[in-house]
Amino acid sequence: MLELRLVQGSLMKKVMESIKDLVNDANFDCSATGFSLQAMDSSHVALVALLLRSEGFEHYRCDRNISMGMNLNNMSKMLKCAGNDDIITIKADDGSDTVTFMFESPTQDKISDFEMKLMDIDSEHLGIPEAEYHAIVRMPSAEFARICKDLSSIGDTVVISVTKEGVKFSTRGDIGTANIVCRQNTTVDKPEEATIIEMNEPVSLTFALRYMNSFTKATPLSSMVTISLSSELPVVVEYKIAEMGYIRFYLAPKIEEDEDETRP
Amino acid sequence: MLELRLVQGSLMKKVMESIKDLVNDANFDCSATGFSLQAMDSSHVALVALLLRSEGFEHYRCDRNISMGMNLNNMSKMLKCAGNDDIITIKADDGSDTVTFMFESPTQDKISDFEMKLMDIDSEHLGIPEAEYHAIVRMPSAEFARICKDLSSIGDTVVISVTKEGVKFSTRGDIGTANIVCRQNTTVDKPEEATIIEMNEPVSLTFALRYMNSFTKATPLSSMVTISLSSELPVVVEYKIAEMGYIRFYLAPKIEEDEDETRP
Amino acid sequence: MLELRLVQGSLMKKVMESIKDLVNDANFDCSATGFSLQAMDSSHVALVALLLRSEGFEHYRCDRNISMGMNLNNMSKMLKCAGNDDIITIKADDGSDTVTFMFESPTQDKISDFEMKLMDIDSEHLGIPEAEYHAIVRMPSAEFARICKDLSSIGDTVVISVTKEGVKFSTRGDIGTANIVCRQNTTVDKPEEATIIEMNEPVSLTFALRYMNSFTKATPLSSMVTISLSSELPVVVEYKIAEMGYIRFYLAPKIEEDEDETRP
Repeated sequence: MLELRLVQGSLMKKVMESIKDLVNDANFDCSATGFSLQAMDSSHVALVALLLRSEGFEHYRCDRNISMGMNLNNMSKMLKCAGNDDIITIKADDGSDTVTFMFESPTQDKISDFEMKLMDIDSEHLGIPEAEYHAIVRMPSAEFARICKDLSSIGDTVVISVTKEGVKFSTRGDIGTANIVCRQNTTVDKPEEATIIEMNEPVSLTFALRYMNSFTKATPLSSMVTISLSSELPVVVEYKIAEMGYIRFYLAPKIEEDEDETRP
Repeated sequence: MLELRLVQGSLMKKVMESIKDLVNDANFDCSATGFSLQAMDSSHVALVALLLRSEGFEHYRCDRNISMGMNLNNMSKMLKCAGNDDIITIKADDGSDTVTFMFESPTQDKISDFEMKLMDIDSEHLGIPEAEYHAIVRMPSAEFARICKDLSSIGDTVVISVTKEGVKFSTRGDIGTANIVCRQNTTVDKPEEATIIEMNEPVSLTFALRYMNSFTKATPLSSMVTISLSSELPVVVEYKIAEMGYIRFYLAPKIEEDEDETRP
Repeated sequence: MLELRLVQGSLMKKVMESIKDLVNDANFDCSATGFSLQAMDSSHVALVALLLRSEGFEHYRCDRNISMGMNLNNMSKMLKCAGNDDIITIKADDGSDTVTFMFESPTQDKISDFEMKLMDIDSEHLGIPEAEYHAIVRMPSAEFARICKDLSSIGDTVVISVTKEGVKFSTRGDIGTANIVCRQNTTVDKPEEATIIEMNEPVSLTFALRYMNSFTKATPLSSMVTISLSSELPVVVEYKIAEMGYIRFYLAPKIEEDEDETRP
């Protein structure tokens, strides 16, 4: 039997909004550790990894490891019916082919049960090793989202270049070129306004803006985003989920001629 | 001669928004008692009845009973041109084939006259007898609107079931099932947050969500909605209009097999 | 070399939003006096004239007169990437076929460069003589925008008639007629709420609402609009840009029979 009670139900709604456009169907894995998901996007280019640790739930019962295949669009439709202040409980009986989402209003006057059919989904869990990155950029998530959106009006790809002074986002399109530089800045009034750069060596990588824009759907989950870059690895765009875990997006760089000069 | 002056002009705008999607053309009936309308929706399934009592108008002159046929979409276009704080006056000369809507801004600096052609519309006034209902639910109108909207994302029909403890709204669709229970609750801080159930006998009836959603366009008119249910009668969904009257929507239940068990 | 630094960058964004739907491509003319534009709309019916005086810029360097042909839609795409509090600098090297828009965030932490190709555009600068008008109406710009929008839901043209008492906007369409009268009113709490009429002789002229609605895109630039009317001249709809200049729209009246009576 599975019963996960999350007081801050709006968080689960935000998680769904973050991934439902990227992933159609996915297995949610439930264990004593937490509630997690790992899935490729529908075009098998990007990978999303979600973790909500068991400690973050008010009540967390998971008698045995279980993998529940869900259509994320349908799951999102149901979770949208939860109020922003509602408590959300995810329930499944052992061996059942359905999952139930229960929403309780703060006053307990309104109780909703939504039952959804589970699906059989083939998936293999990829081991993602901890890796060393050439550069790690931590910056306000809203700023990153704004930059990806702005650059999309000019071009299709973004070159992210990190130096000690800052991070540069560039694009090029039919109507012209754009370069946006965010300077390292740690002396800010609010910690969530800082732009912090950890760099081992300069790096300059090209990515499809379409995916970057899709990742920024997770912006409401966290005021900061962390972008980990290495010329040999997919970029990791990570949004921490306060006291619970994270959502991480992985995307391989595009191999382009003008990148070669930055490669060792 | 007809001259009806309504200081709270926004109310007339809200009335039009409530019914214009449901009804195309309708006769507005004007008498010493008030300004009223009774009309079937364009597919002849639902009935809407509006009453604005003469006492609610600042000035009300209606020399003789008159029935004015109007296209509600055109009337809505004109009323949308009134400011939310404008005073609205409806004027018609005896025997005229036009009606005039006059809008006065609060400062009297802007005066608008909109003149619209009247139409000949065949209609028969149905007598709607006062009836006994098995159950009457009074609940926040925004809550009812939210529930109808939420259930529409899952299914096409709603089963409304009333017991002493509360009212249950259920639906079923391709992606799963949903049940929303609102408990009776009279001990609230604000009276408009109460959910009050008067029940003579349990009732469970099925309705098309499409119509229910249409009725909830009247939500801005009142913070409360009253739903009167009986297994032998159309449901009445009523929004009171403060100090003036009401707008009532009537809809026959759908006859479905799973309803039979609740019938006597 | 050209370098124009505008602290209030949002103003340049609003200017672009005002004209980009009306004009596709246009030459921006830069001289010691200021940054200006004069262009016909794409159907050659309306004329727009913009002036931003050099004194309004924080820094203004223009070594020699230069005319820069730009696609306004592309320019707008780039300026939309500027934050509302950003400082905007327009830069061009002598003989260059590109222009650069630089955006600096208030904290200087984010610096963006957008480079756009210039175009060769044939254009002749029309001399617009100062003229005497029969009537000049000064009124709140939001009110004028609302009136044009409201009348568009009824008809295609607006008759603007000025008398000493006020200005009347009228239209006629399939569903009826509309008349909106704004009275002269100089005794208001805030100067920007006044409606002031200067009249030498009564005037009544007809214009296409489509263009009037397009002009009102400039509403965010100024709380007041000035409408100058004469039966022998195009109407001028002017929005002053505080401490910098103006944007003016010119539109010839429509010749219609019911106008004849107001002609001398």
